[in-house]
Amino acid sequence: MSAAALKQTIDQQLDRHYDEMVKLRRHFHQHPELSFQEKKTAAFIASYYKALGIPIRTNVGGGGVLAYIEGGQPGPVIALRADFDALPIQDEKEAPYRSTVPGVMHACGHDGHTAALLVLAKILNQHADGLKGKIVMIHQHAEEYSPGGAKPMIEDGCLDGVDVIFGTHLWATEPLGTVQYRTGPMMAASDRFTITINGKGGHGAQPHKTKDAVLIGSQIVTALQNIVSRRLDPTQPAVISTGSFLAENSFNVIADKAVLIGTARSFSEDIRTLIEKEIEEVVKGICSMHDASFDYLYERGYPAVCNHPQETAFLSEIARKTEGVQKVTESELQMGGEDFAYYLQHVKGTFFFTGASPENPENIYPHHHPKFDINEKAMLISAKVMVNAAITYQQQGKMSAASADI
Amino acid sequence: MSAAALKQTIDQQLDRHYDEMVKLRRHFHQHPELSFQEKKTAAFIASYYKALGIPIRTNVGGGGVLAYIEGGQPGPVIALRADFDALPIQDEKEAPYRSTVPGVMHACGHDGHTAALLVLAKILNQHADGLKGKIVMIHQHAEEYSPGGAKPMIEDGCLDGVDVIFGTHLWATEPLGTVQYRTGPMMAASDRFTITINGKGGHGAQPHKTKDAVLIGSQIVTALQNIVSRRLDPTQPAVISTGSFLAENSFNVIADKAVLIGTARSFSEDIRTLIEKEIEEVVKGICSMHDASFDYLYERGYPAVCNHPQETAFLSEIARKTEGVQKVTESELQMGGEDFAYYLQHVKGTFFFTGASPENPENIYPHHHPKFDINEKAMLISAKVMVNAAITYQQQGKMSAASADI
Amino acid sequence: MSAAALKQTIDQQLDRHYDEMVKLRRHFHQHPELSFQEKKTAAFIASYYKALGIPIRTNVGGGGVLAYIEGGQPGPVIALRADFDALPIQDEKEAPYRSTVPGVMHACGHDGHTAALLVLAKILNQHADGLKGKIVMIHQHAEEYSPGGAKPMIEDGCLDGVDVIFGTHLWATEPLGTVQYRTGPMMAASDRFTITINGKGGHGAQPHKTKDAVLIGSQIVTALQNIVSRRLDPTQPAVISTGSFLAENSFNVIADKAVLIGTARSFSEDIRTLIEKEIEEVVKGICSMHDASFDYLYERGYPAVCNHPQETAFLSEIARKTEGVQKVTESELQMGGEDFAYYLQHVKGTFFFTGASPENPENIYPHHHPKFDINEKAMLISAKVMVNAAITYQQQGKMSAASADI
Amino acid sequence: MSAAALKQTIDQQLDRHYDEMVKLRRHFHQHPELSFQEKKTAAFIASYYKALGIPIRTNVGGGGVLAYIEGGQPGPVIALRADFDALPIQDEKEAPYRSTVPGVMHACGHDGHTAALLVLAKILNQHADGLKGKIVMIHQHAEEYSPGGAKPMIEDGCLDGVDVIFGTHLWATEPLGTVQYRTGPMMAASDRFTITINGKGGHGAQPHKTKDAVLIGSQIVTALQNIVSRRLDPTQPAVISTGSFLAENSFNVIADKAVLIGTARSFSEDIRTLIEKEIEEVVKGICSMHDASFDYLYERGYPAVCNHPQETAFLSEIARKTEGVQKVTESELQMGGEDFAYYLQHVKGTFFFTGASPENPENIYPHHHPKFDINEKAMLISAKVMVNAAITYQQQGKMSAASADI
Repeated sequence: MSAAALKQTIDQQLDRHYDEMVKLRRHFHQHPELSFQEKKTAAFIASYYKALGIPIRTNVGGGGVLAYIEGGQPGPVIALRADFDALPIQDEKEAPYRSTVPGVMHACGHDGHTAALLVLAKILNQHADGLKGKIVMIHQHAEEYSPGGAKPMIEDGCLDGVDVIFGTHLWATEPLGTVQYRTGPMMAASDRFTITINGKGGHGAQPHKTKDAVLIGSQIVTALQNIVSRRLDPTQPAVISTGSFLAENSFNVIADKAVLIGTARSFSEDIRTLIEKEIEEVVKGICSMHDASFDYLYERGYPAVCNHPQETAFLSEIARKTEGVQKVTESELQMGGEDFAYYLQHVKGTFFFTGASPENPENIYPHHHPKFDINEKAMLISAKVMVNAAITYQQQGKMSAASADI
Repeated sequence: MSAAALKQTIDQQLDRHYDEMVKLRRHFHQHPELSFQEKKTAAFIASYYKALGIPIRTNVGGGGVLAYIEGGQPGPVIALRADFDALPIQDEKEAPYRSTVPGVMHACGHDGHTAALLVLAKILNQHADGLKGKIVMIHQHAEEYSPGGAKPMIEDGCLDGVDVIFGTHLWATEPLGTVQYRTGPMMAASDRFTITINGKGGHGAQPHKTKDAVLIGSQIVTALQNIVSRRLDPTQPAVISTGSFLAENSFNVIADKAVLIGTARSFSEDIRTLIEKEIEEVVKGICSMHDASFDYLYERGYPAVCNHPQETAFLSEIARKTEGVQKVTESELQMGGEDFAYYLQHVKGTFFFTGASPENPENIYPHHHPKFDINEKAMLISAKVMVNAAITYQQQGKMSAASADI
Repeated sequence: MSAAALKQTIDQQLDRHYDEMVKLRRHFHQHPELSFQEKKTAAFIASYYKALGIPIRTNVGGGGVLAYIEGGQPGPVIALRADFDALPIQDEKEAPYRSTVPGVMHACGHDGHTAALLVLAKILNQHADGLKGKIVMIHQHAEEYSPGGAKPMIEDGCLDGVDVIFGTHLWATEPLGTVQYRTGPMMAASDRFTITINGKGGHGAQPHKTKDAVLIGSQIVTALQNIVSRRLDPTQPAVISTGSFLAENSFNVIADKAVLIGTARSFSEDIRTLIEKEIEEVVKGICSMHDASFDYLYERGYPAVCNHPQETAFLSEIARKTEGVQKVTESELQMGGEDFAYYLQHVKGTFFFTGASPENPENIYPHHHPKFDINEKAMLISAKVMVNAAITYQQQGKMSAASADI
Repeated sequence: MSAAALKQTIDQQLDRHYDEMVKLRRHFHQHPELSFQEKKTAAFIASYYKALGIPIRTNVGGGGVLAYIEGGQPGPVIALRADFDALPIQDEKEAPYRSTVPGVMHACGHDGHTAALLVLAKILNQHADGLKGKIVMIHQHAEEYSPGGAKPMIEDGCLDGVDVIFGTHLWATEPLGTVQYRTGPMMAASDRFTITINGKGGHGAQPHKTKDAVLIGSQIVTALQNIVSRRLDPTQPAVISTGSFLAENSFNVIADKAVLIGTARSFSEDIRTLIEKEIEEVVKGICSMHDASFDYLYERGYPAVCNHPQETAFLSEIARKTEGVQKVTESELQMGGEDFAYYLQHVKGTFFFTGASPENPENIYPHHHPKFDINEKAMLISAKVMVNAAITYQQQGKMSAASADI
């Protein structure tokens, strides 16, 4: 069977297995598990593969699962990745398949990623003989919570021998039938900072005997705005947000302590390093003004997702030629983070978005919203793009935009 | 017996009853009760008077106790006031008489006020025939917690018929043997403000879709500084302190809400009214800049303690002539509040400080400190000043600095 | 002649010389001279005394004039002070006697001080034999412009042998017939600060390559507010005002430099020292945050006018008994400065305000206003209070409130 | 002659005319004229064309010059643009050809643009018969000073009939031999804002009677930082810089007025409109807080330079194949502005940078620097890219990346 015929056959089989995909996704949706606690989900995935006789590795990097489909002929090793953790959010949507776990919810679509990859693997497995090379299914735990599952899975060998990796995110705010790609930086590096101001408490009526941690904290939050507006190259997108300001005291007491916690987003290591330093300069300057001391912690989360140019061009061409895809566009920069970034630091590859807006516009909610839902048909599209990319890549033994010839 | 002889006799009796005073004070110290919860303390006071056959009224204004000593001759009605509530502070001092109630403590000396007044009443009662007029002992509950006990006690008639009132506060940071008086404003009006900022939450990476309540709150705290520095007459002391800043969120979320709680201190109703308005202007201006809404609550606590000039001059002369008093000085303005202020809005009178520093300088702690203690001998001095003022006032039928002639 | 008779006689003579006083004042008013440039005014004063045969010293401390009236009997040496410089203000009032010098004006009443003292000296001189002790007329130049004339006049001996000094300021915003006194701090210490921010200029579109001096300066001005609101004892009045912010650049350039100039007012040397230090802390903290450097200059102007208690009580009693004075009250604290402060650091004495509101309320303008004017009758009152104080003081050979007995 | 041969011939002729190009450029360099005052430069350009018999239009849109080279065959109309104004900067470099006009200098390379285009026109004119279509040389005045010369020249018809426009900027901070292109937004929209704060002046010691314009201005400058950091989409580069802060007063006066002047840069009309509105919100909010009024003026300068995708791809391909070009890369976003933007709003086209760093690295200074200079060989490269683009375009009658086939 030619590559073209193989892809067409698989596409048809995917269509026929759509109901199973939906069923699997809804199962995960009803039984969400928080990052690093996804025991049952991982076990479910493992069982699914076991029942098909597909070889797996479990507990990879802690809680990940790998499944291997060995092609009948030699060729490149391609990794396809789906994450499977959920979020600490109460599901508030009206749907028969809504979460059964109080306060936990698949509010980001990882359930769909996993269902699509499982069904795709099942079908690919039936065509193993026709494949040129190996396909590794990376079922990753803990994407939502830094340090994430990608890093330990890589350290545990999930990319060993892998030539290229593809991954997608179902994107509920983009229409069904669209695919978004972006060369170079696509999703932000996401860091966390914690500033503890050690002032000196006292009576609210005697400010001169204190070092007012609430005022110090307020001046810091205000001055942090200068970093983005003045200290960073304006052509380099970045965000610094202070999410928490904690100084709880009696109304007539002056705070001895305030804790600020926030996030910094950027798209290059240079900017990241600069932000880390500039936050400290702000804190140091304001605290010195008040003769107060501080503790400052800057914790690096996921780096920026940086897609490789050739693989991205390849994928975008593939997408254009994939059934169900009507529009392929360059993605805006996304300030959100993704630990898919780590894979791309080790092997070539690209990450793309698969439009997944629910049909009824009233049901379109941003990711992490308590009423978040996806258009399940997007799973089908994502699976088709993935498999078309994998088979084409295997056929070519390499990839380029020009040669993405189906 | 002449007034002078009477005063001398009573002074001597007070000296002889010092041990009882100490015993009473330590009893209260070991059994402190929070404001508006002083059932046992009020019952104890009532029992003490009942045992002496002194007529009382209980549950006055809720939890206060009044005791009446009717003089043998007609004359003015003089009120002497002592408060008896304690604070939500854990007693941390080493002393056999330390608080037996976890988290509750007489950290402000009200135990001493009460013990001194009880013993003074007991002795005065023995000389009732020689008194010209009536003396009302006002045992007030709930001074520490606004709206306080003074106001409801006044509404319940505790000042009915009263011509003049005297009250003192044992002052642990001033030396034993000193008395501080001040004409006009002496202690601050103490108000409370609560600002709730209703922003719009969102993801930390997408500030432009939010109204960042942490930033708005920070700018408000910063701009509130301008009120004292720019909007108020610099010769009119005032303080605005934000004690609490509450906006607890995940680090990567932008806050939809922040709550600021603080205190405002001032010495005149005009300034008070101005502060209330100016805080609102600041909040309104900053919130409008961010298109956010807010709730603003300004709760007036006790007004300023404003001592009447003639009564203050009278008291300071009395103090100078009282046994045990070595130094009588004008008090600094005190930014702390006192609901004695309400009495002075209804009748003439004055409030003064009786120096009460512990003998060992290492034991001198500010009021409301977990290791706070008083020099118990100060009770004796306060009782002597009070009784000398009362008897002299009765003799004269009026008071003036010049006529404070013992 | 008894002291009482003498005072009465002089009061009557003053009344008869009122026209001369007015004539003299209007002469000065029409020919104002700026601080340190009052050649003609000083010469005029000197001529006046010479014509009367009263011994003088000229060029005292640069530009001051001293005149001596030696009493017929021994006694204390009393100094009476009047200043005579004008202001760089354009006279905008409609009056036949308005300033003839463009941009220079007696907008503070020093012309009245001088006219009153000259006429008083003329009359006193006629009664020299009856005086017990010496009276020194201090005609001081340059009160309006720091470092002022008082300091060099003192260094040049104007207070040598002086026992007590009295001075007054005609006060156009207080009604005619009033006198205001105040014990202790009465007028503020007045200092000047200059902050030069050395940032790094650049193109407005490339803030990250600059250190934006306009932003740095703005944050400093904002943070300076904290000093009064947080760092100083709220019972200690103080003001810090930034009058000038200078950073002139093309609109699309980022400023390399900004200059802030302002004034600080306070009532004690401790607070003054604290303000000087705290401003530096603010500037240092904000500049360090931006990695910018700065120059900081804090120039002490006049210290606070601190009236001596006994002399103030004495003067207020004298004032109460002086013809034409209807009301004697305690002055509010005044945030304005006066180099009379220096005299009071060397000898006992007091400074007071003589109410001088123009009869027509529409003509009442604050000091330093282009339409400022005084009620000339206030000169008469000020002269009477001064001479009554001087003669009474001489008679007593000392002074006290109780003995201010005319 | 084939297009390829033609281009080669012209390239060689350009090489031979390099000395003339240098001579012309140095002439302009020595005789710079400010924007809107370039009489002599325009006359020089006109004379040059007249001498060659090339038809021109002068005073186009005020001060521009157009020259037309009519091809021998029909075809598209191509415009090539060079600007010719100088800057109000004192030339500080050591060079025989430095500016002879005090305070005026070609510190941006427009002299080179003009010299290159003149020589190119001269040579093209010799091959007019072989050209398919018309070439319009747009010599634009006043690029440095908004509203610029492009707009009135367009209104005066300079683009009538034009199909495509190309323009370049010699870029002294990029190496010789490089060309930078960018699709879509490339250079920023550049606007100007003026904020006048109408406070209420007064004495520095009486802030409560004033509305302190220096403080209000400072809080505005500080709060303007929030717009970039919070109100704008972080993926949309923008800058807001306040270049001037003017409030000059005596040190002891509180400012009644402050004027802030600054620039805003952005890359889309939406962001521009948002910035205009958000600045007003900040000013309104802060002023309302102080009960002050304001005047706000937002003047739109040049819009963003938005290169057309196909023309940009075409030009970058041309550049890659042009003699002397070693490297063609995507340009970073440039925060600077250019009124070339207007041409691109009317016809298709693209603007690119031609690397022009002086050979000696010590002589590399940023544009608008007093020691700015260019590598004159860059003129040759820019002319070659321009002419190659023009001829290829004419041959194809259209352009696309794929067909940029020499």
